[in-house]
Amino acid sequence: MSAYNRGVVYRGAGKVEVQNIDYPKMQDPRGKKIEHGVILKVVSTNICGSDQHMVRGRTTAQVGLVLGHEITGEVIEKGKDVEHLQIGDLVSVPFNVACGRCRSCKEMHTGVCLTVNPARAGGAYGYVDMGDWTGGQAEYVLVPYADFNLLKLPDRDKAMEKIRDLTCLSDILPTGYHGAVTAGVGPGSTVYVAGAGPVGLAAAASARLLGAAVVIVGDLNPARLAHAKAQGFEIADLSLDTPLHEQIANLLGEPEVDCAVDAVGFEARGHGHEGAKHEAPATVLNSLMQVTRVAGKIGIPGLYVTEDPGASDAAAKIGALSIRFGLGWAKSHSFHTGQTPVMKYNRALMQAIMWDRINIAEVVGVQVISLDQAPQGYGEFDAGVPKKFVIDPHKTFS
Amino acid sequence: MSAYNRGVVYRGAGKVEVQNIDYPKMQDPRGKKIEHGVILKVVSTNICGSDQHMVRGRTTAQVGLVLGHEITGEVIEKGKDVEHLQIGDLVSVPFNVACGRCRSCKEMHTGVCLTVNPARAGGAYGYVDMGDWTGGQAEYVLVPYADFNLLKLPDRDKAMEKIRDLTCLSDILPTGYHGAVTAGVGPGSTVYVAGAGPVGLAAAASARLLGAAVVIVGDLNPARLAHAKAQGFEIADLSLDTPLHEQIANLLGEPEVDCAVDAVGFEARGHGHEGAKHEAPATVLNSLMQVTRVAGKIGIPGLYVTEDPGASDAAAKIGALSIRFGLGWAKSHSFHTGQTPVMKYNRALMQAIMWDRINIAEVVGVQVISLDQAPQGYGEFDAGVPKKFVIDPHKTFS
Amino acid sequence: MSAYNRGVVYRGAGKVEVQNIDYPKMQDPRGKKIEHGVILKVVSTNICGSDQHMVRGRTTAQVGLVLGHEITGEVIEKGKDVEHLQIGDLVSVPFNVACGRCRSCKEMHTGVCLTVNPARAGGAYGYVDMGDWTGGQAEYVLVPYADFNLLKLPDRDKAMEKIRDLTCLSDILPTGYHGAVTAGVGPGSTVYVAGAGPVGLAAAASARLLGAAVVIVGDLNPARLAHAKAQGFEIADLSLDTPLHEQIANLLGEPEVDCAVDAVGFEARGHGHEGAKHEAPATVLNSLMQVTRVAGKIGIPGLYVTEDPGASDAAAKIGALSIRFGLGWAKSHSFHTGQTPVMKYNRALMQAIMWDRINIAEVVGVQVISLDQAPQGYGEFDAGVPKKFVIDPHKTFS
Amino acid sequence: MSAYNRGVVYRGAGKVEVQNIDYPKMQDPRGKKIEHGVILKVVSTNICGSDQHMVRGRTTAQVGLVLGHEITGEVIEKGKDVEHLQIGDLVSVPFNVACGRCRSCKEMHTGVCLTVNPARAGGAYGYVDMGDWTGGQAEYVLVPYADFNLLKLPDRDKAMEKIRDLTCLSDILPTGYHGAVTAGVGPGSTVYVAGAGPVGLAAAASARLLGAAVVIVGDLNPARLAHAKAQGFEIADLSLDTPLHEQIANLLGEPEVDCAVDAVGFEARGHGHEGAKHEAPATVLNSLMQVTRVAGKIGIPGLYVTEDPGASDAAAKIGALSIRFGLGWAKSHSFHTGQTPVMKYNRALMQAIMWDRINIAEVVGVQVISLDQAPQGYGEFDAGVPKKFVIDPHKTFS
Repeated sequence: MSAYNRGVVYRGAGKVEVQNIDYPKMQDPRGKKIEHGVILKVVSTNICGSDQHMVRGRTTAQVGLVLGHEITGEVIEKGKDVEHLQIGDLVSVPFNVACGRCRSCKEMHTGVCLTVNPARAGGAYGYVDMGDWTGGQAEYVLVPYADFNLLKLPDRDKAMEKIRDLTCLSDILPTGYHGAVTAGVGPGSTVYVAGAGPVGLAAAASARLLGAAVVIVGDLNPARLAHAKAQGFEIADLSLDTPLHEQIANLLGEPEVDCAVDAVGFEARGHGHEGAKHEAPATVLNSLMQVTRVAGKIGIPGLYVTEDPGASDAAAKIGALSIRFGLGWAKSHSFHTGQTPVMKYNRALMQAIMWDRINIAEVVGVQVISLDQAPQGYGEFDAGVPKKFVIDPHKTFS
Repeated sequence: MSAYNRGVVYRGAGKVEVQNIDYPKMQDPRGKKIEHGVILKVVSTNICGSDQHMVRGRTTAQVGLVLGHEITGEVIEKGKDVEHLQIGDLVSVPFNVACGRCRSCKEMHTGVCLTVNPARAGGAYGYVDMGDWTGGQAEYVLVPYADFNLLKLPDRDKAMEKIRDLTCLSDILPTGYHGAVTAGVGPGSTVYVAGAGPVGLAAAASARLLGAAVVIVGDLNPARLAHAKAQGFEIADLSLDTPLHEQIANLLGEPEVDCAVDAVGFEARGHGHEGAKHEAPATVLNSLMQVTRVAGKIGIPGLYVTEDPGASDAAAKIGALSIRFGLGWAKSHSFHTGQTPVMKYNRALMQAIMWDRINIAEVVGVQVISLDQAPQGYGEFDAGVPKKFVIDPHKTFS
Repeated sequence: MSAYNRGVVYRGAGKVEVQNIDYPKMQDPRGKKIEHGVILKVVSTNICGSDQHMVRGRTTAQVGLVLGHEITGEVIEKGKDVEHLQIGDLVSVPFNVACGRCRSCKEMHTGVCLTVNPARAGGAYGYVDMGDWTGGQAEYVLVPYADFNLLKLPDRDKAMEKIRDLTCLSDILPTGYHGAVTAGVGPGSTVYVAGAGPVGLAAAASARLLGAAVVIVGDLNPARLAHAKAQGFEIADLSLDTPLHEQIANLLGEPEVDCAVDAVGFEARGHGHEGAKHEAPATVLNSLMQVTRVAGKIGIPGLYVTEDPGASDAAAKIGALSIRFGLGWAKSHSFHTGQTPVMKYNRALMQAIMWDRINIAEVVGVQVISLDQAPQGYGEFDAGVPKKFVIDPHKTFS
Repeated sequence: MSAYNRGVVYRGAGKVEVQNIDYPKMQDPRGKKIEHGVILKVVSTNICGSDQHMVRGRTTAQVGLVLGHEITGEVIEKGKDVEHLQIGDLVSVPFNVACGRCRSCKEMHTGVCLTVNPARAGGAYGYVDMGDWTGGQAEYVLVPYADFNLLKLPDRDKAMEKIRDLTCLSDILPTGYHGAVTAGVGPGSTVYVAGAGPVGLAAAASARLLGAAVVIVGDLNPARLAHAKAQGFEIADLSLDTPLHEQIANLLGEPEVDCAVDAVGFEARGHGHEGAKHEAPATVLNSLMQVTRVAGKIGIPGLYVTEDPGASDAAAKIGALSIRFGLGWAKSHSFHTGQTPVMKYNRALMQAIMWDRINIAEVVGVQVISLDQAPQGYGEFDAGVPKKFVIDPHKTFS
C-alpha cells in the first residue's frame, strides 16, 4: 500500500493549504497500535461550517492540523479485530470518533464518548480539542473501532449514483436532523429554523422528512435566503426591521411556531438593519424563546463554545451569554444541546436517501471540487455562498 | 331550529335504509339533560369498514340503530357550558365519544373513556356496545363535551376546499396513523401494511408522512392492490402462492420489514390461492410476526372482537385466536392494539392536510355520495371497491 | 350557604394579613357566570416559596391580592355541569388553573393552559399575572372546571389520616417530582438537588421514590442542611469554600452526578463564604452544568421570571442571566423549565402516599398552623426555617 | 494458566452432572480465534428457571451441553483488543452474548444480536439454539466482545460484600426489571405479577424500586406464596377457586391493576383447584388481559417458545396459543415480549444494589452452593422451593 497521502492543513487564521501528509498508521493519536481500525481511501469529504470556526482563528487550533471530519470512503486495509467489514466496502464515517464500549456509547450518546479523547468527552477527526484524530480532507484516513463506527452502504453501485447525497450522512444531514428531532418536529409541526447555512437547510429538509406542515428558515444573507426559498421553504429575512414574530404571523396567522432549531450558534449577529452589523451571541436563543409556543422544545445543533478567545466581550470569551432565561421558563420551554450522535440517525437517513425521500444534496447545494480546490472552497463558503463543498480527492465521481 | 332529521338505519343483516329519525336533543343516551354539547349540521359523514361488521350481522347490533361515527359538521346549537366554540364553526368530530374528565381522557386514551359508556370503557357514535350515542350518517347529530371533543377547522373557506381530505380526520386517517405510529414508523423505515382497504391505505399514507423509506401494502383483492400501486405504494399480492416474505425480499433485498401494521383484523382470510377461500382470523398476526424484524413493533388498528357469534370456530366466537406467540417472543416483538384515540393526532394531521403534506382523499379513494345513496355505498364498499364513501347529506360540496 | 369568608391578603412588601374577604361566587375573574365550578370548604392550604417572591416585593403583585395556591378541600357547592364530583367529596386542587379543553390541556401541559389567563399562558390561584383567580389561603375558594381540575381522594377517612402528606399534592410534591422526572431520574441514578427548601426536599424525596441510588442536596442554610441530612439525604454545604464538585467527589468517588435539579431559581446566592453574601441569579445553572455528567438532563422547577424589578443588575431586571451555555453545549446537556403540570403526576403520587411509599410531610417538615397564624408562618418561612407551613383554616385536623 | 476446568453438563431429560470440561480457548464457537474476549475465573453462577426447560427435556438441547448463563467472574486473561478491562477486574456478565457492532446492539437490543448466533438473532451462554457459546456453571468461562459485554464492578471489596445481590445482575434482576419496565410500572402503579418464582420475585422487587404503590404476586405454589408474602408483597393464591380479579378487588378495592407482568411463560398451569392439574399455556396471558386496566401494558419476560415438542396439544407444539386477543384489543392493551437486553439495565441496577435500594438476594431467596451441589440444586429448584441457587465454584465467598 502506498505511503503517500495529501490533505488540507490549517496554516493559521484565514489560511488553509493542501500539503503532503503522513499516510495513516494503524495506531491511535497516543501512538498505541490498534487492530480495530480500518484505513479508508477517501471517496468524498466535505467542508463544514465548524471547520470555519477554526480557520477564522476563533479557536485554539494549532497550525499543522489536518482538517476534515465529514468522510465517506472505501475500506482498503483493516485490522485483525474488524469482523463485519470487508476490503472494498463503501462506508460512511460519522464525524464523531466513538469507542462503542463506554457508558456514553452504550447509551448511543456517541457525541460524548468517554474514551477517545483524553481531554474531555467526545472525539472527532481533524478538530481542535477533540482527541487529535487526523482529519479526513485527505486521500486516506484512519477510522478506529471500525465495526462500530462505520455505516456500510449496502449496494456500491447504487450508492455511487447517490454519492452527493450520501456524503451528507457523515455530519450535515444527521446534525440538521438532530436539531429537528430534539425540537420535537413531527407530522403537522410548524417549524422555524434559525440559519440558512448547510446545517439550517439540513434541519429544514429533515423537518420536511419528519412530516412538518411548514418550515420557515431565517437568515440575514440574501443569497442563502433565495436558495432556501428555491428549495421550497418559507423564509424570514432577518435583515429587515420587521420583527421575526411578525414575519411568522404573516406566514402562519400566528406569531409562534411549534418547534424551533438554532442552526447558527455562538457566532450569531443581531437582527434588523443595525443589529446585523454586530456579533450578538445570545440573539438566536432569545429570539427562539420569543417565537416558540408554550411547552415547545428548542433544538440547538448550532455550536456554542466553552472558550471563545475572539469574542466581543469578556463574558462571551468564557462562553457565557446573556440569555432571557425567564422568558423560556415562563413558556415551559426545554433546550437541547450538543454534538449530534450521528450513529443514532445515519442508517435511517441512508434509507431515506436510497428510497428518494430526501434530496439533501440539492437542498444544501452540494458542489463537488477537487482536493486542490479546497482552499478556494473554504474561502467561498466563508463568504456565505449557498453551497456545500464536497471534495472528491481521487476524482472518483466528478 | 328544525325538528326534522334523516339518517342511515341498520335494518338487519345485510340491510341499511335511510329513514326519518329524531332531531338530536341536548341530552345523553341515558336521558340526562346536558349543557356541554352542541348540535351539528352534518357537512360530511363517511361509511367505515367497521360499520360493515355490524351490517354483515357479525355483531349484536340491534335493528333500528342509526349508523355513522365519521362526522364533520357545523355548529348550529350549543349548550351553556360550551365556551370555545361558536355557532357557525366548522368542526371535525373524533369518532370516540370522550368526557375529557376521567383518568383515561386525561392520559389522552380517549378511545377508552371511562364514563361515556356504562357497559365498558370507550364510546362511539352509532356503534353497537359503544354507549348508545346516536350515529351521524344523518343530517344532524349531537356531540357531547363539545369543547373537549371537537377540533375546530380554523379557516372555513380553506377547509371547505379540502373537505374531502378533512372528512378523513374523524377516523380513517388517525386510525391508519395510529397503526403506523404504534408500529414505530419513522424516517427511513421499511413498512408492511396488511390490508389495502381504507384503513390500510391510510396507514400507508401515514407511514409516508412519517418519513418511511418504503411502504408495502398487502391484500388479496386485485382492485384494491391496483389502487394501492397507483398511489405509489409497493404491493404484495396475497392471493399468489409466493409467500409474503419472498415478495418482501424481492422488493427490499431482505425478507423482513422494520415495522408492520395489521389493518385487517378478525375477519382475515388465509393467504395463497387456497387460503383465500376461508376465514382465518390469526393469519395476519402470524404472518406479521414472520416478516417483522427482531425488536420490531406491530401496530394493530384492525378490529379484534371480544365476541364473534358468526365466527367459524368455537374459540373465535369468544375472540380467542391461535396465535404463534412463541415466534413473536423469540423476535422480541411488541403488539399494540385498540381503538385509536383520534384526538391525540387529529390537530397535527389537519395541519398536514392544510399544508398539502398528505393527500388522503386521493389515497383512500374518496367518492362523495348523497345521503340517499348510502345504502348503495354500503353495498359497493362491502364488495371491495377501492373507495371510501363520503356522504354529503346537505349537498354542501357535491 | 354562608356568605362569610376570611383569607390571607398581601398588604405590600413584607406584609400579609388575615382579612374578611368575599365568599366565592360561581363566576370567573372576568365576571362570567360558570356552571363547571365548585366551591370548596378549604381543609388545608399551604404557604409556598413562590408566595414569598410576591411578599418580598419582588413582583408586581397588587395590594389586596388574596394569596394561596396549594389547596385541599371539601366540595360544598357545585355547578350544573359538574358530573363526576359529589357534595362532600374531599379533593386535591392542582395549583394550575386549567380549562381541560385547549391544546395545552389536551397535551397535559396544564401549567400553560391557553384560556384561563387573558394575559398569557398559564393560570394559578392567588398569584400575580396568573389570571386573577382568587387565592385559597382562606376558608372557602372557587375551583373552575372542577371535573377536570380536581383529584378526588377516594376514601375520606383514610385520606384525613394522611392529610399532612396529601396536602402536598397540590404543588410542592408534584413540583419536586417534575424536577426529578425532567432531570431523568430513575432507578440507580445519582442526583444532585440544588436547594434544601421545600421544593428541593420534595425533589429529593421524589428522586428516592423514582429509585435513585443516592440524592445529594445542596444549600447555604445550616438548619435546612441539617434537616435534609436527618431525612436520609446526602448534603453539600455551599457555604464552605470546598467547591461543589469536590464535595460530590467525596461522596460518590467522581465529581459528577447523572441528574441535576435546580430547586432554587432566580433568587440564588453565590457559593462559598464570600459568594453567599450576594445574589447571583445564574450561579445555580452554571454550577449544575459543571457537576452534571455528559448527556445529562437538568430539571429546573425553580422559578425564573420574565421581569424582576428588584434584581441587582439591569440584565436580571428583564430576566436575562449570564449563563455559561457553551459548557452545557459541550456536555450535550438539556434544560427543562416551567411551571409543573400538577395533574400529570398527582394521581400517581396520591397512590404512593396512600400506600406508604413516600413520607413527604416529614421530609418537607410540615407544620400545621391556624389561619390566623399565617402571617407568622410567612415570616418564619422567609427566615429559612426547615418547615412547610400548612394552614388548617377550619381546624379540621389540628 | 491452568488447562483444567469443571462444569455442569446436561446429560438427558432430568439429569445434570458435574464433569471435567475443556478450559476455555480464545475462540468463538465456530473455531475462529478472537482478540476481543476475556477468560473469567467464575466467582458466582446461578441456576435459572430457563435452564429447567432444557433439563426437563422440553427443548432440543443436546446431551453434553455445558449449562449456565448467569455469571459473575474475575478477568484472568484477555485478548489484545480488550482495552477497558484489566486482569483482576471483577465483572458481571449479561446472559446475552452480543457483538456491540450490529444494528440490534447499536439500538441496545442486545437480546437479539444479529451476529453471535448463525441460526437466528440472539445469543447466550450454555443454552440450546443460542449460538453454542459454552455455559458458565463452571470454574472458567470465555466472554467474547468483553469491553462491550462486561459490566465492571468498580470496587472489588465492596462488591464482594454484596456478591449475593450482584450475582443477580447477570439475568434474574434485569429480567424481572424488564418485565416491570415494559409493563409501564412507575411511581404509584398498582402491579400484578404472575408467578412467584425468581423472575416473578425479581419483577416484584423491581416494581417496588420503580416506585409502585403496591405489588401483588400470584402463584399456585404455597411455599413460594409464603416467601413472597414474607418479602412484603401482596399475594394472590391461584390454587383457590376465588377468581384472580376478585382477589385483586379484595386488595385494591377494584378488580384491575395498572400494570401486569407475565413471569411464567409457556409452562403455565390453569388456575383454581382443577385447573392447576393441567398445563394451559395461554392461561396467564388471558388472565392478565382480564385484570389489566384499559390502555395498560403487559410485560412478558416469561419464556414462550417457537417449538415445544413436549406440549400437550398440536398447536402448542409449534408455539401457537389460543389467546383471547379480542379482549386485549377491546381494552387497548399492548404486549411486550422477548429476551431481556441485560446491558440496558445492569449498570443502573448495580448502583441500586450498591446504595442499598434493592435487596434482591433476600427477595429471590439466594442460597449459595458448591459446584458439586449443582445437581441437587437443580432438583430442589424444579420441585418449587422458594430459592435461587447460586453456585460458588471456587468457594470464594461461601
